[in-house]
Amino acid sequence: MTRVALISQSANLAYFGPLLQAAAPELEVVVWPDPAFREAEVAMCWNAPPGVYTEMPKLQLVHSIAAGVDNVVAGQDLRGLPVCRVVDPQLAEGMVQYVLWSVLYFHRSLDVAFANQRRAVWKRPVQTPALQCRVGVMGLGKLGGAIVRQLVALGYTVNGWSRSAHAIDGMAMFTGPEAFDAFLAETDVLICVLPLTDATRGILGRRTFDRLPRGAAIVNCGRGEHLVANDLLGALDSGQLRGAVLDVFAQEPLPADDPLWRAPGVVVTPHMATMASSAVVAEQVAHNVRRLVAGEPLANVVDMGRGY
Amino acid sequence: MTRVALISQSANLAYFGPLLQAAAPELEVVVWPDPAFREAEVAMCWNAPPGVYTEMPKLQLVHSIAAGVDNVVAGQDLRGLPVCRVVDPQLAEGMVQYVLWSVLYFHRSLDVAFANQRRAVWKRPVQTPALQCRVGVMGLGKLGGAIVRQLVALGYTVNGWSRSAHAIDGMAMFTGPEAFDAFLAETDVLICVLPLTDATRGILGRRTFDRLPRGAAIVNCGRGEHLVANDLLGALDSGQLRGAVLDVFAQEPLPADDPLWRAPGVVVTPHMATMASSAVVAEQVAHNVRRLVAGEPLANVVDMGRGY
Ligand SMILES: NC(=O)c1ccc[n+]([C@@H]2O[C@H](COP(=O)([O-])OP(=O)(O)OC[C@H]3O[C@@H](n4cnc5c(N)ncnc54)[C@H](OP(=O)(O)O)[C@@H]3O)[C@@H](O)[C@H]2O)c1
Ligand SMILES: NC(=O)c1ccc[n+]([C@@H]2O[C@H](COP(=O)([O-])OP(=O)(O)OC[C@H]3O[C@@H](n4cnc5c(N)ncnc54)[C@H](OP(=O)(O)O)[C@@H]3O)[C@@H](O)[C@H]2O)c1
Repeated sequence: MTRVALISQSANLAYFGPLLQAAAPELEVVVWPDPAFREAEVAMCWNAPPGVYTEMPKLQLVHSIAAGVDNVVAGQDLRGLPVCRVVDPQLAEGMVQYVLWSVLYFHRSLDVAFANQRRAVWKRPVQTPALQCRVGVMGLGKLGGAIVRQLVALGYTVNGWSRSAHAIDGMAMFTGPEAFDAFLAETDVLICVLPLTDATRGILGRRTFDRLPRGAAIVNCGRGEHLVANDLLGALDSGQLRGAVLDVFAQEPLPADDPLWRAPGVVVTPHMATMASSAVVAEQVAHNVRRLVAGEPLANVVDMGRGY
Repeated sequence: MTRVALISQSANLAYFGPLLQAAAPELEVVVWPDPAFREAEVAMCWNAPPGVYTEMPKLQLVHSIAAGVDNVVAGQDLRGLPVCRVVDPQLAEGMVQYVLWSVLYFHRSLDVAFANQRRAVWKRPVQTPALQCRVGVMGLGKLGGAIVRQLVALGYTVNGWSRSAHAIDGMAMFTGPEAFDAFLAETDVLICVLPLTDATRGILGRRTFDRLPRGAAIVNCGRGEHLVANDLLGALDSGQLRGAVLDVFAQEPLPADDPLWRAPGVVVTPHMATMASSAVVAEQVAHNVRRLVAGEPLANVVDMGRGY
């Protein structure tokens, strides 16, 4: 019998129990911190407590319940264990919608309309065609690629940036750190859908903002730690940035006294851009556990050398 | 020489002068209320003052500067004069963007996120795929048709309603007054892109709202007179409607003391959904004037029997 431990210090993952067993009745499921977690072969995690895997001598697989694995591996001793993530086509649908909404919000000056409505001011903004709005997408993986294709279809001028080159019809490609500044110089709305790694932490900071055209906007739906919040507040204050749509935060829930909640030009959403359905997550984990038991290759394994 | 009079009681149309002459140097242009307007053969209008055409004995053509002609013909004696409007493919692009933004705003619960942000409340809304969000589009002409095609492409469940039947891939068709109630019963987000006529005035009123599923939302980018504002305020108050995005108003600019500015759940935008570029408008009018002079058939003539 294979034992799966549901582990999170910020969420109660117990609801995955019945779903996992529906997908693979042979599994035994325990919920951390029930001490039985120490006997588990598989850890299914979101925000794993530091050092937890060292208490699990039989552990053979660490599985994230999400697309990102950062909060499953950060500060952990992984001793070479495989780490898997969830890759769900439905996940891209939600992210594309969220980013599309955000791009339209800035491109069509809905941010200005909201600000004017608060003061009952009627003022038609100058409007430009989509082609004149340059959207820069950081991260061209499962999510970023889908975002780019949709924005191109809607007529936006789209620039993409990632570690390696990707060819997407209608997108201008900027590859690696050398091309980053050139990418930023051509970006009116900057979208971050990067994974969180040592190379991307704090990438939405003052250095980046200063290289965008004055009045650019940012959308962060990667991870909270991509953003340097104080640099954002400064850039909004100086007018270097026009606004920001933020879905993710270094601390979630965002504390009620965090200045981001009330900063002019900032839209705060509660990490809602996209989420795989629990049933799909449970199925993908169950299938990977069966592959593990059968000695077959695992699906959606993360390259821990790169960190994503 | 043909004389074109620029006529509006709410906007200064003088900027069309140079554009018209760039497109057709042989035209003479006058701006109402300069008395020379009385000698013009063509009236190029937005919000024409009541009775103005009766002061123009040589008038042969009334041309709107926009897609709608309601404020060009309302309360006028047209004595059989042809009335033309502007049909610009670029016009649809802007309208599609505006409606897409509005649909995403409700479908993805951004309205809830904005309300929560005001109180610094972190609460993930339940999310559903696009397929489970039923969008009902009233008016399937140049603008409505483009809206429907885009929403279908994004995976929404789309219902269309108009006077005559239109076949659009992926859209369920509801034709005429008999099918109106069935259409409403299947609509979570109701979009109005109808022209304003005697048959459509006040169509966004209590009777309509009561036939939508409880908690539906509306988007009005037709004309302000489609909406019965007090009925909307009542329906929001009772919870029958969840919210409204309004781009057009019976009086524009919307007066600063109008309750719509501050009604919870209402987004007010300043008639900005879409606008043809002035150059395109001037060109289309200039070409129609040349056709008139040459005795050729006019383009984009409105059927005054139907009113649109
Ligand atoms: N807000 C939400 O609701 C939500 C939901 C799901 C996911 N997310 C976030 O979205 C992230 C991306 O997900 P995904 O499935 O699209 O990941 P993915 O398929 O692994 O794609 C990651 C992309 O980022 C690029 N990248 C990584 N490190 C880079 C660096 N140092 N410089 C430049 N580019 C770099 C990669 O480049 P290469 O192509 O060259 O490898 C790749 O294109 C997740 O990690 C998670 O943080 C957020
Ligand atoms: N907010 C803005 O910025 C903005 C900008 C431009 C236009 N507009 C508004 O959008 C309107 C539509 O423009 P358009 O170019 O798409 O017009 P259009 O091509 O003339 O299409 C009008 C549509 O409405 C339908 N319709 C008319 N009367 C109806 C009735 N009584 N019952 C049911 N359906 C009816 C027509 O049905 P049939 O197909 O059967 O004829 C047609 O499908 C304009 O008139 C204007 O008011 C707003």
